[in-house]
Amino acid sequence: MILEIAQIDVKAGSEAEFEAGIKQAAEIFRAAKGCVSFAVRRSVEKPQRYRLLIEWETLEAHTKDFTGSQAWKDYRALVSPCFEAPPSVEHTELVLRAF
Amino acid sequence: MILEIAQIDVKAGSEAEFEAGIKQAAEIFRAAKGCVSFAVRRSVEKPQRYRLLIEWETLEAHTKDFTGSQAWKDYRALVSPCFEAPPSVEHTELVLRAF
Repeated sequence: MILEIAQIDVKAGSEAEFEAGIKQAAEIFRAAKGCVSFAVRRSVEKPQRYRLLIEWETLEAHTKDFTGSQAWKDYRALVSPCFEAPPSVEHTELVLRAF
Repeated sequence: MILEIAQIDVKAGSEAEFEAGIKQAAEIFRAAKGCVSFAVRRSVEKPQRYRLLIEWETLEAHTKDFTGSQAWKDYRALVSPCFEAPPSVEHTELVLRAF
């Protein structure tokens, strides 16, 4: 299982628009093959910064099957007008879940 | 509930030492008041990069009660020799957990 961590800085004043858009976009991810969970978090220290925490069954389910697909384009159309800069995306593997 | 995301880049070759140290350190977090969960993830794209995902009941449980305490010093003693640079720490609040 892969956890994608996408860091998104939005334009000042576009926070509510981004949150509404990403809520709609979540339904696109729900329908995506191999997408296991979808959460959105907001930084306390930098309130224009959000993180998407998205679990995928495999790396390829995200990078090969989803990215660039029509579903991905639909997702980007919903929220990319709010982006201050291109999102920074990284994939992570679990090392330890202690408790 | 606050999710702390700490990004830690370790020195090349110190990955195994870091993983052993953070496994020990997890027990320190388990005993910390207000610490709810503790997981460690490793970047696929940058294998020297780890992220600690740590849930706290409140922001202050981390920033006021834990940081700088003897327990914090014990944790840092276990893993800081592996650090390539000071960790980058951010706290996040949940906006949406869709599924």
